[in-house]
Amino acid sequence: MSELRQNPTTKEWVIVATERARRPHEFVRAKAGSVELPDYSPTCPFCPGNEHLTPPVLLTYPPAVDKADHRWGVRAFPNKYAALSLPGKMERRQPGPLFRQMDGVGAHEVIVETPYHNRSLGLMTDAEVELVLRAYQERYRALRNEPWAKFIIIFKNHGTSAGTSLEHPHSQLVATPIAPIHIRQKHEVAESYYDDTGRCIYCDLAQEELAAQERVVLTTDHFVVFEPFASQTPFETWIAPRRHLTSFGDMPPEELRGLAQVLRQTLAKLHKGLGDPDYNYIISPAPEEDEHKSYYLWHIQILPRLTTAAGFELGSGIYITTAKPEETAAFLREIEA
Amino acid sequence: MSELRQNPTTKEWVIVATERARRPHEFVRAKAGSVELPDYSPTCPFCPGNEHLTPPVLLTYPPAVDKADHRWGVRAFPNKYAALSLPGKMERRQPGPLFRQMDGVGAHEVIVETPYHNRSLGLMTDAEVELVLRAYQERYRALRNEPWAKFIIIFKNHGTSAGTSLEHPHSQLVATPIAPIHIRQKHEVAESYYDDTGRCIYCDLAQEELAAQERVVLTTDHFVVFEPFASQTPFETWIAPRRHLTSFGDMPPEELRGLAQVLRQTLAKLHKGLGDPDYNYIISPAPEEDEHKSYYLWHIQILPRLTTAAGFELGSGIYITTAKPEETAAFLREIEA
Repeated sequence: MSELRQNPTTKEWVIVATERARRPHEFVRAKAGSVELPDYSPTCPFCPGNEHLTPPVLLTYPPAVDKADHRWGVRAFPNKYAALSLPGKMERRQPGPLFRQMDGVGAHEVIVETPYHNRSLGLMTDAEVELVLRAYQERYRALRNEPWAKFIIIFKNHGTSAGTSLEHPHSQLVATPIAPIHIRQKHEVAESYYDDTGRCIYCDLAQEELAAQERVVLTTDHFVVFEPFASQTPFETWIAPRRHLTSFGDMPPEELRGLAQVLRQTLAKLHKGLGDPDYNYIISPAPEEDEHKSYYLWHIQILPRLTTAAGFELGSGIYITTAKPEETAAFLREIEA
Repeated sequence: MSELRQNPTTKEWVIVATERARRPHEFVRAKAGSVELPDYSPTCPFCPGNEHLTPPVLLTYPPAVDKADHRWGVRAFPNKYAALSLPGKMERRQPGPLFRQMDGVGAHEVIVETPYHNRSLGLMTDAEVELVLRAYQERYRALRNEPWAKFIIIFKNHGTSAGTSLEHPHSQLVATPIAPIHIRQKHEVAESYYDDTGRCIYCDLAQEELAAQERVVLTTDHFVVFEPFASQTPFETWIAPRRHLTSFGDMPPEELRGLAQVLRQTLAKLHKGLGDPDYNYIISPAPEEDEHKSYYLWHIQILPRLTTAAGFELGSGIYITTAKPEETAAFLREIEA
């Protein structure tokens, strides 16, 4: 019989469907699905030599190692087809009693992670991943003090099932002029837990996963990586700090270095273990207008796109997962990375 | 510049991205993507002659027309790989302070819509679609009085991008022992609107779309079909009744007949206009434990799967749509069906 499990941070339930469960190795992508990419593509706007095809840069870092054969290691610039941009009016308009709209004010940026067309994060060195995280932090910090920015999200789409249209490794950052309901509801759950206990629900959850051990993939001094008890997809993976820190933007350099190692290792395990699966990851954003709350802990949520959300998920918000997080964690623990 | 629009029934925002907008005809599926199916497949468990491959039936209707060459028109039975099933314990268990779980109690049924392997709803006659809707209603009514059933959803997954694994036309029904947070939040918005105005927000929304006209696809005496002002995907389409009725389960036979015509016509427009796109639809469920509330109106939400939700959507709950609902509605209005 299958099992219902509740995600304590959203109160939403998931179904762990044992009747249609698959073992971890059944999610390994067939060789045929994986395309071998060249390290350089002359038509790619993110490859070296094509810098003129992108909007003016916001940030350029030199390569992580001296002997690198390129002039830059990481570049960030506004998205050429930005979903949100400046300038614009912040006023909300009401073309009808129930219709509310406003200009698409905001920021939408691209962070190109490497000059190499085919070097995804799981295949990089720790130093290269660290450079990417530094760029995230620099752009995040630049935007968080903008008066119009109510919400900032950093995310990555890897592979076509994850919604990417350009294969060159890159991440994105979006800052919006409104606080999404989805995020506000998560913060309300965390605030209510803090009211009851005086503790951060995410810190407690990470501690509980550490104590239970069976869903832990790896731990370091600063971070714990686990497959959550109420995973919404097979191989959902969280990376959480082991000390309370509300915002990713405030992480000190030595912890950022530690995060680079852990993120690289986790993505390498997924890459090797599952044959380069498509995935999204999201750096979960701090509450709006207050980055130093006791109730919220920033974390990274990795969502491999191994199954497709169907009518049931879209209509109910309940996800059916076809793998047990205890088994996927055991599988990933064994993968050398 | 793009535009932010708020969905009044969820308070969530969507981004109508004009910078990357596509015209309606650009969503037409290339011929190559569409597979010509046979009307019978000997290995399909839902095709006539293979009835022994499915669990025992819950419902069988004769064909809609006498001269039909099959013994049945619609069949319903429990899903062989049910996500939820009976019997089981309703008690919640707590294997850790933040971990909550329970048995996967519930119902998960399949409704085979036709004996023909390749006759999807948009290609049926009105009488055939009516038979499918009657089956939905019969199974819904059978389950809504079960004491454990807190939520019942009827949905359809059409095509692989919509999450289906079997191509023979079928719908599904799931009844869960918990009320999903996602649904409860929608009901809270509707209740709060009713508190303020004494009216149903869904009825008001349908009236407002009717008055605005520009997003209306078609209207009949009983129903209005429109692309919502704050559509979350290109060609999102709603079918809403024109008189207040909380539950799909209570619709009288003559209105069910009218719904069959409207649903058939809408799906035929999508099929012809876009080249048989993959889609999900959901019959939005009534509030738990009360089917006669003044604040909620049942409706059908059709979500074509023409784009892929990426990290931004998964992390923020804000959808970026790359088509204007005003333009997609105008496009669909012109399609003969």
